Amino acid sequence: MAQFRTPRGTVTTPMFMPVGTQGTVKGISPDELLAIGSQMILGNTYHLMLRPGEDLVAAHGGLPGFTAYPGPFLTDSGGFQVMSLGHMRKISEEGVVFKSHLDGSLVDLTPERSVAVQEALGADVIMAFDECPPFPAEREYITRSLERTVRWLDRCLSAKSRPEQALFAIVQGGIHPDLRQRSLDLTLPFATPGFAIGGLAVGESKAEMYPAVDFTTARLPADKPRYLMGVGHPEDLVAGIALGVDMFDCVYPTRTGRFGYALTDDGRLNMNSSGPRRDLRPIDEDCDCYACRHYTRAYLAHLVRAEEMLGPRMLSLHNLRYLHRLVERARASIEQGTFVDWATDWGLRYFKGALPEWFAQTLRATEATPA
Amino acid sequence: MAQFRTPRGTVTTPMFMPVGTQGTVKGISPDELLAIGSQMILGNTYHLMLRPGEDLVAAHGGLPGFTAYPGPFLTDSGGFQVMSLGHMRKISEEGVVFKSHLDGSLVDLTPERSVAVQEALGADVIMAFDECPPFPAEREYITRSLERTVRWLDRCLSAKSRPEQALFAIVQGGIHPDLRQRSLDLTLPFATPGFAIGGLAVGESKAEMYPAVDFTTARLPADKPRYLMGVGHPEDLVAGIALGVDMFDCVYPTRTGRFGYALTDDGRLNMNSSGPRRDLRPIDEDCDCYACRHYTRAYLAHLVRAEEMLGPRMLSLHNLRYLHRLVERARASIEQGTFVDWATDWGLRYFKGALPEWFAQTLRATEATPA
Repeated sequence: MAQFRTPRGTVTTPMFMPVGTQGTVKGISPDELLAIGSQMILGNTYHLMLRPGEDLVAAHGGLPGFTAYPGPFLTDSGGFQVMSLGHMRKISEEGVVFKSHLDGSLVDLTPERSVAVQEALGADVIMAFDECPPFPAEREYITRSLERTVRWLDRCLSAKSRPEQALFAIVQGGIHPDLRQRSLDLTLPFATPGFAIGGLAVGESKAEMYPAVDFTTARLPADKPRYLMGVGHPEDLVAGIALGVDMFDCVYPTRTGRFGYALTDDGRLNMNSSGPRRDLRPIDEDCDCYACRHYTRAYLAHLVRAEEMLGPRMLSLHNLRYLHRLVERARASIEQGTFVDWATDWGLRYFKGALPEWFAQTLRATEATPA
Repeated sequence: MAQFRTPRGTVTTPMFMPVGTQGTVKGISPDELLAIGSQMILGNTYHLMLRPGEDLVAAHGGLPGFTAYPGPFLTDSGGFQVMSLGHMRKISEEGVVFKSHLDGSLVDLTPERSVAVQEALGADVIMAFDECPPFPAEREYITRSLERTVRWLDRCLSAKSRPEQALFAIVQGGIHPDLRQRSLDLTLPFATPGFAIGGLAVGESKAEMYPAVDFTTARLPADKPRYLMGVGHPEDLVAGIALGVDMFDCVYPTRTGRFGYALTDDGRLNMNSSGPRRDLRPIDEDCDCYACRHYTRAYLAHLVRAEEMLGPRMLSLHNLRYLHRLVERARASIEQGTFVDWATDWGLRYFKGALPEWFAQTLRATEATPA
């Protein structure tokens, strides 16, 4: 457990960051985000540069003024989303040219442009523009890509003009320890104020992913935030924390909420199924979110069946609060020196009695690490 | 201006009631409804009896327990919505048989069943089961229908078993003064604790509707609430208040909000148009709603274009607050004895400089009435 300072407040890690892709955490107001314990919100450079455009955000004084969320923000570089466009984009040493998903126009995104956009968006933490290879990818491609990512990091740092923004580098290397090591060797000398673990959660299994997380976190400086990008599900937060991850982000809690699912210690509750339809209990007796303090499962199931907007709104709110509470519980157990016991108990309940090997392995890795 | 007491609180009239068709005011939480000055929420018997069924609502202790809105509720009788089903329903002296829009099953709705459902839903004010003729309708049909509505009122009152619920009768008669008078003559002797003006806002012009409102309110007891059902737009609230209406309800503020429109004293602002796209002002400088205190028009226009849930949510909230504030301003002007001046100024701005004759006529009717 640790803290780090940003211009808009000090955050306590480990933490989960809600994703505000288009300048809003889907369906949730800033006051609600503060009430459920959100500390830092993620914004997406790719989406915001296309619509409404970074100039309009800058005219509001950046994302805090635009979105009315008064706390710290982190923006991604746009790299990951541009890479995901597949045949709609072309990568070169200079950067990426892609077709906008909104109007088909051709857009350039380079390390310099990514930094300029992120400066206009005004987040507290900005990310280096990296190349994230798909999974699976050839070793040779991953190698070329991680080396280019380092050159792009250098260009990002040269382009950066706002000292109040912290730029985090991104370590690549796929699931290969030697390539992760190569990326670390080239990236660590830049001594950025934080480091992200990139190139994971892109299609590999959890049994392949977590050893790569373990390998990387173990070699990143302990006194700087370690950010596992695009992760995760509840089990990913517990496993990631076991391996020393400080920061997470994922659209999962809001997306699965819009699909009618509620996160609990017993797994996902499907509000479309018949189970909750006449159940007068809250989603979670222990949860302090607005939905759990006010509504029965039966009411929320009714909202979902009736396709009422309040349904996805309340399930998204609950799911975000669930992940924040999960991280808070993990932090408390770390403080008490009982993390492995807590995580084991949580996992046994969540996984219905049997821990998956990949999950158990992350807990053994924790035990092997001196506190 | 007046007040009336309900088991769940005293309300001040005139008032606008947000509509919670399926057990939720679309997109808005109970705390938000309280914060914007909502006093009473309308629930729809037709929708709730079909889904989730009145038994489940009763198992929550009625609508307040089900929806978590702690204040007074009013439920309609289901009559209006069943009548709107057209060829999907059959009316007889006994009641209405209709096809559920959800699963096509045949459902009976009679005065007795409507009261039983409304008792299970547990609102503070319940409505008589009436027949609302379409517009236009033959005089003979309107006459038969208003007489049947009175027989149904009698059956509703006989079926009613919960003294804490106030049942309001509904005056019919279309736009014909003599038929309105006939309905009044037959209905007033029941001396229910409030009266609704039914059969309007079903297709007739405002120039046809408002004389019928005027005729009816002038003949309803001044010491009991007068409720103009299914109305209205901002101009309808001002005109209705001029004619002595105490209660209004309409889906308009939330529906137009979901379509991307914001209500203002200058008329409807279309957030899909280019005007607001770079406008850094709030929707309304004078509005105290969450959206106006936190967001620019440009941000809200972005949400609407990006099809973000927060857009319809915030526009619905603002529009409800706009109507509540409009009624509050009307009440304040009544207290100060300046209603006609206030309504004239409001109308000149809202209608861009020229009051429609039907609107001006409602203000003249006010001036002609001793205070």
